[in-house]
Amino acid sequence: MVDVLGINGSPRKYGSTFKSLRIALMAIEREGLDTELINLVDLDIKPCIGCLCDEQKACRYPCVIDDDMRELYDKILEAKGVIIATPIYWFAPSGLTKNFIDRLTALENMIFVEGRSWLEGKIGSVIAIGNDGGGLNVVSTVIGALNCMGFLIPPFAITYFEEQQDVLDNLELLVELANIGRNLALIIKKVAVKQWFDQSLREWVEEVRGEIEREATRIRENEKERLRIITRLIKGEQLVR
Amino acid sequence: MVDVLGINGSPRKYGSTFKSLRIALMAIEREGLDTELINLVDLDIKPCIGCLCDEQKACRYPCVIDDDMRELYDKILEAKGVIIATPIYWFAPSGLTKNFIDRLTALENMIFVEGRSWLEGKIGSVIAIGNDGGGLNVVSTVIGALNCMGFLIPPFAITYFEEQQDVLDNLELLVELANIGRNLALIIKKVAVKQWFDQSLREWVEEVRGEIEREATRIRENEKERLRIITRLIKGEQLVR
Amino acid sequence: MVDVLGINGSPRKYGSTFKSLRIALMAIEREGLDTELINLVDLDIKPCIGCLCDEQKACRYPCVIDDDMRELYDKILEAKGVIIATPIYWFAPSGLTKNFIDRLTALENMIFVEGRSWLEGKIGSVIAIGNDGGGLNVVSTVIGALNCMGFLIPPFAITYFEEQQDVLDNLELLVELANIGRNLALIIKKVAVKQWFDQSLREWVEEVRGEIEREATRIRENEKERLRIITRLIKGEQLVR
Amino acid sequence: MVDVLGINGSPRKYGSTFKSLRIALMAIEREGLDTELINLVDLDIKPCIGCLCDEQKACRYPCVIDDDMRELYDKILEAKGVIIATPIYWFAPSGLTKNFIDRLTALENMIFVEGRSWLEGKIGSVIAIGNDGGGLNVVSTVIGALNCMGFLIPPFAITYFEEQQDVLDNLELLVELANIGRNLALIIKKVAVKQWFDQSLREWVEEVRGEIEREATRIRENEKERLRIITRLIKGEQLVR
Repeated sequence: MVDVLGINGSPRKYGSTFKSLRIALMAIEREGLDTELINLVDLDIKPCIGCLCDEQKACRYPCVIDDDMRELYDKILEAKGVIIATPIYWFAPSGLTKNFIDRLTALENMIFVEGRSWLEGKIGSVIAIGNDGGGLNVVSTVIGALNCMGFLIPPFAITYFEEQQDVLDNLELLVELANIGRNLALIIKKVAVKQWFDQSLREWVEEVRGEIEREATRIRENEKERLRIITRLIKGEQLVR
Repeated sequence: MVDVLGINGSPRKYGSTFKSLRIALMAIEREGLDTELINLVDLDIKPCIGCLCDEQKACRYPCVIDDDMRELYDKILEAKGVIIATPIYWFAPSGLTKNFIDRLTALENMIFVEGRSWLEGKIGSVIAIGNDGGGLNVVSTVIGALNCMGFLIPPFAITYFEEQQDVLDNLELLVELANIGRNLALIIKKVAVKQWFDQSLREWVEEVRGEIEREATRIRENEKERLRIITRLIKGEQLVR
Repeated sequence: MVDVLGINGSPRKYGSTFKSLRIALMAIEREGLDTELINLVDLDIKPCIGCLCDEQKACRYPCVIDDDMRELYDKILEAKGVIIATPIYWFAPSGLTKNFIDRLTALENMIFVEGRSWLEGKIGSVIAIGNDGGGLNVVSTVIGALNCMGFLIPPFAITYFEEQQDVLDNLELLVELANIGRNLALIIKKVAVKQWFDQSLREWVEEVRGEIEREATRIRENEKERLRIITRLIKGEQLVR
Repeated sequence: MVDVLGINGSPRKYGSTFKSLRIALMAIEREGLDTELINLVDLDIKPCIGCLCDEQKACRYPCVIDDDMRELYDKILEAKGVIIATPIYWFAPSGLTKNFIDRLTALENMIFVEGRSWLEGKIGSVIAIGNDGGGLNVVSTVIGALNCMGFLIPPFAITYFEEQQDVLDNLELLVELANIGRNLALIIKKVAVKQWFDQSLREWVEEVRGEIEREATRIRENEKERLRIITRLIKGEQLVR
């Protein structure tokens, strides 16, 4: 059982979305809480089949679809907080992330089954990373969805980044990401907070970003098959047909 | 000094936006806190002139524009929570509401002037009422803005209504609105909360909605000039040219 | 080769999203053009793996992923117009629909590979159907994405419906849907248009809606496995664990 | 009577929003059409008072409010195309711009009064410029609103820019802005278009951007009162209280 789950909705397990989520989770660990980073791309999470449109109460826990979401539901139920980190694809979360969000309905819809959303009172934050625009659209829509499911949203709980720069080179962003983690942790710990945006995290992010870079590099090196494909694509080889 | 400000961004002081905001505020008063309802239409709030685009630190409290926002800034600084209620105009807050939101920058931008947003840690909720769509767009964008300013967002803090029905006839909605008020109050009171969505408020809203209806009627009757104009418009009279 | 593709992003092939899309397509056929309705739920369309984040030019046609999108790419390239119809899940397109949209990048990104988006000049429309809010958020974000890919958007090309009523019972909506189809067809046919919103389609939709109802019923009856599951869910049977 | 109106919703008449709009308008003039740039900040445009919520048919042309919008309504009715350019304030159009959009209802709502939106068939584009995020949110919501009012949207009709850089230094953006103007003009001229995104405009924008810079400088120098205030603000002088 972990205190906070970090959901990585990027197919690139070593990319900017990962790095951004990782620093937020490290800021949580720094406050003494446990975290776990979940890569959705490693799981089999099928699209929601919309049972509740046939009958409102048909959608309930456990979801009728028997896939890796089953284990994830239980992790979510046990966790106190969830951070969703997604790449920005066409001004919206990736399809991978969206399937995950759609499937949360089985927990939220318990409000129609037994009068209470099973997600209410959890703490939520959202991070969107892309190299094109739309980041605000992603984080505001997803944070709105989480709030309607019953999540409490700490101050400064959302951020987005839309540039081609490596996120680890952008100190402003790293401080924001660290504050996302810190504030989520402080709410869980029920600490009386004097200042919600902590500028002094700048020094700490400067210290730890090298570690995240090394971690990302290790993960990237393990993605041999992916890199082989990308390399061939860059050379302009047609891989299909 | 009041605990919670309710900002009504509708030009119609007696309409559905007012009624929706009123029930949320009454749910706050029921928890023992003070509230005040502000009608933006009664105030002179000029558009933001965008000083910070000339120079980031030029935007600061007190705002350079000398209008009724001055008094409102101080009320916001003193309050612990703010509910923004806006009609939905073209899938977005009314221009009246938007001018108010734009002007909040003078408080938020203090983060660039002295390292701290003067709005951080306040509790925020958003209500959007219209007779066409776009409600979710309004509440998610505004709640996203409030969160980036430093507001904490309680569970179930946003709602919208997009039908032509009188809001007081829709019990589901009234219970949601009452929960918006209740949850905002419980966070301010730092109560340990067992259930965030309180279905039992249904009885209470059934009791009090008559009172809100009477209040709206009284306000409407005072809007003689407005009603005179509308009546003539309905008759098809051309009031200009 | 068809003139207009209708993409149904609902897992329920007989539901309101289908019916809404169907009437728009029938209005296109009425103008003498060919259409084809594609049910995404019947296809194997994997999530985008984000090659372009590794290297901008790596994302190109044909997409490296070898699944049913291959055939769909060619249909899209041949078609003059595309209507995307999606259910509203958490204020956004379904994950099923989102995966389809994400994968369109392989056509759009040709602008970086050879200076021209392969989607430019196509005509696009978007329909969003749900029984909760967020419809405007869906259609504006998706129509924005289509426009950035190079689609031309006819007048009155988007609509959404957020009520629990059967769409075929809502004449206003049906007239809007028929106009979506008509306008898309008129643009393709390069007709000089006198009036873009044609109220007189009301009679026609009254005539044809029975036909769509029968079609939906036939499709529903073929979904035996789905209905068997839903029936058991409604009875409260736990189908997993 | 002009072919295309450019609406500048920025209070800074010499800023990036102006420059972006100006280059789009110049690309229209290059196609032989007339344009006019309107600075909303120079006009008295009061907030919409929401008559249609009292009675659907009460909102009609001419609007009951007697201000500078009266003249603007007539210009819009005469024009074939409209470009709305707005700064991004809190992920949304400025209040100044929003008041303008809200007031367009008096033309659109004629669909309820006499069966036809007076805006249908006009051609529309949207530009959003800020130094923070939310640009996509602005352009997609506003383009969605325009489309629902009956505007046809040309390919590549929206763009946004969210960086602190001077827009005139960003060639990519200038080419996009020029294409917005070009495509709007080509649709009005009913030209058969071979390629909608014209990369060759790059040379032209390089030529003309100096001219826009000089124009902006001239306008800025005329804003003596504004600059005096900003200068004092930068020095940290408290201008109120």
